[in-house]
Amino acid sequence: MPKTAKEPIELKEACVLAAHEVIAEHGIEALSLREVARKLDVSHQAPYRHYPTRDHLLAEVMRRCFENFARSLDSRERFDEPSADLRSLGRAYLRFAVTHPLEYRLMFNTPWPEKADHPALVRDATHTMNILRTVLERIHGPIKVKKSTIDLDAMFIWSTMHGLASILQSDAMSHLDISKTAQGNAMQYVMDMIDAAMSSCVR
Amino acid sequence: MPKTAKEPIELKEACVLAAHEVIAEHGIEALSLREVARKLDVSHQAPYRHYPTRDHLLAEVMRRCFENFARSLDSRERFDEPSADLRSLGRAYLRFAVTHPLEYRLMFNTPWPEKADHPALVRDATHTMNILRTVLERIHGPIKVKKSTIDLDAMFIWSTMHGLASILQSDAMSHLDISKTAQGNAMQYVMDMIDAAMSSCVR
Repeated sequence: MPKTAKEPIELKEACVLAAHEVIAEHGIEALSLREVARKLDVSHQAPYRHYPTRDHLLAEVMRRCFENFARSLDSRERFDEPSADLRSLGRAYLRFAVTHPLEYRLMFNTPWPEKADHPALVRDATHTMNILRTVLERIHGPIKVKKSTIDLDAMFIWSTMHGLASILQSDAMSHLDISKTAQGNAMQYVMDMIDAAMSSCVR
Repeated sequence: MPKTAKEPIELKEACVLAAHEVIAEHGIEALSLREVARKLDVSHQAPYRHYPTRDHLLAEVMRRCFENFARSLDSRERFDEPSADLRSLGRAYLRFAVTHPLEYRLMFNTPWPEKADHPALVRDATHTMNILRTVLERIHGPIKVKKSTIDLDAMFIWSTMHGLASILQSDAMSHLDISKTAQGNAMQYVMDMIDAAMSSCVR
């Protein structure tokens, strides 16, 4: 039996789902509380009971993407050997990006709402980065390294994975005359190169 | 004196500029020949004289982005030493991405129109990839390597640069608790890591 979307808790949830649909259908530019109300067939004022502004709703939509993403990364196959675990993390990252293109775009290709106003979003986004940091700390071994060192490695690896994910999503390889062999081996090769670069700096 | 946009050649040009404006203001989803006609204050049929479909106009908009991008890469500071030239290319790439965010997004974050119908777009896009391939051939030295090897290196480097460009554009670093030192040194460090990875595979 379909439930009415007008009860407070349900409306709060329904707004998030409707926002997802608006973004999927018309792009992030089209998201507004008015459009969400229209989609839910509730009064224009109704979404304001739960989200003071469009950005508060967007922040909650984004936060859930990070939450799902972190859950997916945390459930990867684990390995004792840190560099094998890094590869497993890379595969889990790319798998999520390819299977959840909208969520991925919302996390990493969407201008953020003012972060000071959305601490839950910052917390859940930072948690995903901390998954990578934890693996990198294991790669560096028992000697404690500076946070800035870990962050630089994280930036390199994240850049590479994020770029590859975007390229895999966009079908750009097929447009730029990349050989079929290279297309098939790109993911493996990129991970080999990350491994080579990390090995050269962790001694 | 403003020119009328109704003369054939000028209208063809004006459509490209208007398409840019539509995309900048409302996103790629809003691009249509009807919207372009409205912006130019010409009849709905007028753009069809030059662009049979919306995708033909989009292909020309994208092609010009690649043309400008290639010009920008070709005018980088040149170095005899191939790995120094690769770094110079990397800096030119990131500079373009940061100073031309819309053009960059159109090239690499936009679904392509059917490529078989737009050979000029494919040609100019492939040319930009060939700039990187040429530098990579010099890095591999006098021994001829397979195209698939060059393409794999190109995929690794392009992924890394594309990811870093997207991250720099999005201000994502400031949201994910990346230390200030790491933020300031990320570009240099990522290029060092590319260098380290390339050195390990070119012997």
